[in-house]
Amino acid sequence: MTRNITRALTTAVLLLLSGSVLAQQVPQLKPDEVIRYRKAGYVFMNWNMAKLKAMLDGSVPFNKDQVLAAATSINSTVNSGMGALYPPGSDKDAGAEKTRLKPEFFTQPEKVKEVAGAYRAAGTKLAAAAATGDPAQIKPAFDDMGKACKGCHDAFRKD
Amino acid sequence: MTRNITRALTTAVLLLLSGSVLAQQVPQLKPDEVIRYRKAGYVFMNWNMAKLKAMLDGSVPFNKDQVLAAATSINSTVNSGMGALYPPGSDKDAGAEKTRLKPEFFTQPEKVKEVAGAYRAAGTKLAAAAATGDPAQIKPAFDDMGKACKGCHDAFRKD
Repeated sequence: MTRNITRALTTAVLLLLSGSVLAQQVPQLKPDEVIRYRKAGYVFMNWNMAKLKAMLDGSVPFNKDQVLAAATSINSTVNSGMGALYPPGSDKDAGAEKTRLKPEFFTQPEKVKEVAGAYRAAGTKLAAAAATGDPAQIKPAFDDMGKACKGCHDAFRKD
Repeated sequence: MTRNITRALTTAVLLLLSGSVLAQQVPQLKPDEVIRYRKAGYVFMNWNMAKLKAMLDGSVPFNKDQVLAAATSINSTVNSGMGALYPPGSDKDAGAEKTRLKPEFFTQPEKVKEVAGAYRAAGTKLAAAAATGDPAQIKPAFDDMGKACKGCHDAFRKD
């Protein structure tokens, strides 16, 4: 019952948001599903960042096709509309899903806009750099992507 | 100790594999990590497939930018070199990670090649169809992507 009320309120809040955010929202996404989906995006991104790191630091041979595949995957995750996976209240664990999202995410919209903008720009830049196949261009773009990830972690992720 | 031996043997087996597979392999990826990463890829793909489904069946308004973002994300996941996340022995649960991969995955290489080829081709086709912005082209490509997913589930995923 409480859960139904919570969901009804969440839906009401979503209806107050902009059309662009709403268009990204799959209907009836449950509180545990938004956490599960967004965490999956970051975990998969981790793998691709680890591959890039290994190829850029020489742990494994540099392979420009693999660099491009990893960077394209990262960019398409970053720019997939993940904002829709952060509905109000989703700083609370739900079902079997735990989240480290800080409640400040919902009280500091300007800071969210700042870190999200840097994140999306870094993804776009990384994919463009990877397309050149030039490690000298890819390395700084990779570093900037890492900084953009950290920017959000520092502001909105619990330790 | 047993785990170290298992990892040494896994590394030895990987060294016998082709250079292209090896190039995709982050060094020292642990047995639980390969399961965690591959499952994350499929979970995130689920979200994007659900978004496409909702826009194609009219549950939410069709938005060609969102369709393109979802299809691009799916295709870049499909074609990210996920084969590297299926080392020998990874049909066994590892650490906290559970897997539904059937052992047949490692004894039916021709079938793996068939389902993996269909999967990658469907991803490429879906992204190309999404780029047209035409639902009449996107719908069959989405259906084919779903069939390609199911093809692997039917052959190699436990219920």
